[in-house]
Amino acid sequence: MDKPYVIGIDMGGTNTAFGIVDRRGEILFRDSISTLGYTKGEDYVNDLGNAVNDLIEKNNLKGLIKGIGMGVPNGNMNDGTVENAANIPWAKGIVVPLAAMMGKKTGLPCSLTNDANAAALGEMAYGAAKGMKDFIVITLGTGVGSGIVSNGQLVVGHDGFAGELGHVRVIRENGRICGCGRTGCLETYASATGVTRTAREFMEIQPERASVLREIQHRPITSKDVYEAAKKGDKLAIEIFNFTGRILGEAFCDFVAFSSPKAFILFGGLSHSGSFLIDPLKKAMEDHMLNVYKGKTEVLISKLNDAEAAILGASALAWE
Amino acid sequence: MDKPYVIGIDMGGTNTAFGIVDRRGEILFRDSISTLGYTKGEDYVNDLGNAVNDLIEKNNLKGLIKGIGMGVPNGNMNDGTVENAANIPWAKGIVVPLAAMMGKKTGLPCSLTNDANAAALGEMAYGAAKGMKDFIVITLGTGVGSGIVSNGQLVVGHDGFAGELGHVRVIRENGRICGCGRTGCLETYASATGVTRTAREFMEIQPERASVLREIQHRPITSKDVYEAAKKGDKLAIEIFNFTGRILGEAFCDFVAFSSPKAFILFGGLSHSGSFLIDPLKKAMEDHMLNVYKGKTEVLISKLNDAEAAILGASALAWE
Repeated sequence: MDKPYVIGIDMGGTNTAFGIVDRRGEILFRDSISTLGYTKGEDYVNDLGNAVNDLIEKNNLKGLIKGIGMGVPNGNMNDGTVENAANIPWAKGIVVPLAAMMGKKTGLPCSLTNDANAAALGEMAYGAAKGMKDFIVITLGTGVGSGIVSNGQLVVGHDGFAGELGHVRVIRENGRICGCGRTGCLETYASATGVTRTAREFMEIQPERASVLREIQHRPITSKDVYEAAKKGDKLAIEIFNFTGRILGEAFCDFVAFSSPKAFILFGGLSHSGSFLIDPLKKAMEDHMLNVYKGKTEVLISKLNDAEAAILGASALAWE
Repeated sequence: MDKPYVIGIDMGGTNTAFGIVDRRGEILFRDSISTLGYTKGEDYVNDLGNAVNDLIEKNNLKGLIKGIGMGVPNGNMNDGTVENAANIPWAKGIVVPLAAMMGKKTGLPCSLTNDANAAALGEMAYGAAKGMKDFIVITLGTGVGSGIVSNGQLVVGHDGFAGELGHVRVIRENGRICGCGRTGCLETYASATGVTRTAREFMEIQPERASVLREIQHRPITSKDVYEAAKKGDKLAIEIFNFTGRILGEAFCDFVAFSSPKAFILFGGLSHSGSFLIDPLKKAMEDHMLNVYKGKTEVLISKLNDAEAAILGASALAWE
C-alpha cells in the first residue's frame, strides 16, 4: 500500500515549522524548531531530524510516511542543495546538500525546493491549481516570487533556479533601483514594498493632492495603509493600486506569451487587496494581451491559508 | 524492433516539403507538393497523403515508418489542429484536425506543432541542443519565433499556443507598432524587418551621418544590406546591429529569469549576422543578467542546414 502521509518542512530565517500532512492537504500534527543559533548545517539537521522523528513516533506513524518535502530559501530542487541562503549563516558562500543530509538523518526520501516553487506544488496538490497542468503562482510579499508549472512539472531550468519573475525588468529606462543591483524589476513595483514606494512617489510628485495617507507621520507608510485608505475611498490610494495592478497585468501578458498558463494564482499579503489590485490588473491583461491568448487566462487568489501554505507546499514535493 | 524511420513534413504557405528521416537526422528521400490552390483541407490531405505514401512505397520502406511529424503555421500540438493559419485558405476561421486527417489517410501516427516548436525539437534530436533538457530556440526571420524546451519537454501551455516570445513587449512607452496590433513587441526590433526599421529610423534621425546604406535607392533596404554594410565597416550599420543585439540580449535576460535555459539557439536569416549581432547581444546579457544566472547561459547558432531544418524539426516530433 502506498504510504498515506508526508512531512512538509517550511524553513524560514527564524523558525522552521513542519507538519505531517495527508493526501487531502490536512496538517494532522505539527511542531517547529528555531532556525537561529546554528553555525553548522550538521547541527541544524541533527536537531530538525530529531524533532521530525519525534513527531512521527509520538503519533505512531512510523512506516506510514512516504517522504519529506522542504521549502528552503534559495533551495535548488535539481540537486537538493541550499546555497547562499539569506539569513542562514551555515549556508553562506557554500553549497550544503541539505536534502541528502535530512534523508540520511531521518531515513526518509527528502527533496527540497525554494518557497515559491513549493507554493506552486501546494496549489497543484491541494489548492486553486488542482487539476491544472499549466499555471504560475505569483507571491506578492516583500518581494515578488514565482513558481511556474508547465505540463504538470515545475519549471526549474538547467541550474535549478528558474522562475525569478520578480526580476523581469518591466521598466527599461529610469526604472526603480532593485535590491538585486539592477533597475526596473517587477518586484520594485508590484510587491508590498513597491506599493509603498509608489505611495511615496505619488505624494511627492503631487504635493497638492489631499490623501489620508498624509496623516501617517513618524513611521513609514505600509501597503496595508494604502489598502485601508483605498477602502475609505481615498483617490490617491486607489491610483496607487491602479498603477500597481497595471504594471503587474502588463507583465502577466509577457508571461502568458512564454508559457500560456491556464491561471495566475496570487499568493501573499498584497494578494488580499481585493478589487483595488485585481480590477486594474485584469484590465491591463485585456488591453495588452496578444489576441491568441485573450480571455483565456484566469487570475485566482490562493485558497490556501497563509499560515499553513508553506508547510503544505513543501509537503506536496514529497508526493511527487 | 523499433521502427527506424520517420516522416517530417514542413507545410509552408506555398510549398509543402517532406522527407524520410533516420535517427541521425539524415533526410534519405524527399519530395514536395504545392500548398496553393486548395479550398478544402480534405483535398490537401488527400494529395499530401498520397505523395507521402508514394515516397514510402517507392523506396520499399512500408512498415518501417514510426510516424509522421508536421510543422504547420499556427499548429496546435495539444490537439493536432490548425486554426487561422496565415495564407492557408482552408484553415481560415475554422479549426481543422489536420493531424488526425493525415493519420487516417496514411495509416501512420501523426502529430503536428508550429514551426518554431518543430525547430526546437529538431535542435534537441539532431542539432545544437542534443543532450540538453532546457533551452530556447529563437528564430530570427521576418518575425521572431520561439520554441521553448523545459525539462526535456516543449512548453506548449494550456491551449497549445505558448512560446510567442517575439510578442513580449520590450518597449512599453512609444514602442514600434507591431503586426499583432500592439506596440513594442520584440519582433518589431529584433527581426530582419526590425533591422530595416532601425536602419530607416537611424538614417532619418541623423540625416548628416554618412553611410553606404544611403546609396541604396529605388528599393527598400534589407537586413542583408545592413549586414553587408557592417562588413565594409560602415559605422551606422554597426550601430544598427548594436541596437538590435542589445534589445535582444536584454530580452534574453528576462527569458532566463523565466525558464533558466542552458542555451539560446538562434536560427534563421538574421542569426547569420556573426559577431555584429552576437557581440552586443552577449554584452547586454552580461550587463543585465540577474546575478544567480550570470555567465551560465550560452548563445549558439543552429547547426542545422536552413533548407533541411524545417523537415528535420517536424520529423523530430514523430520520435517523441
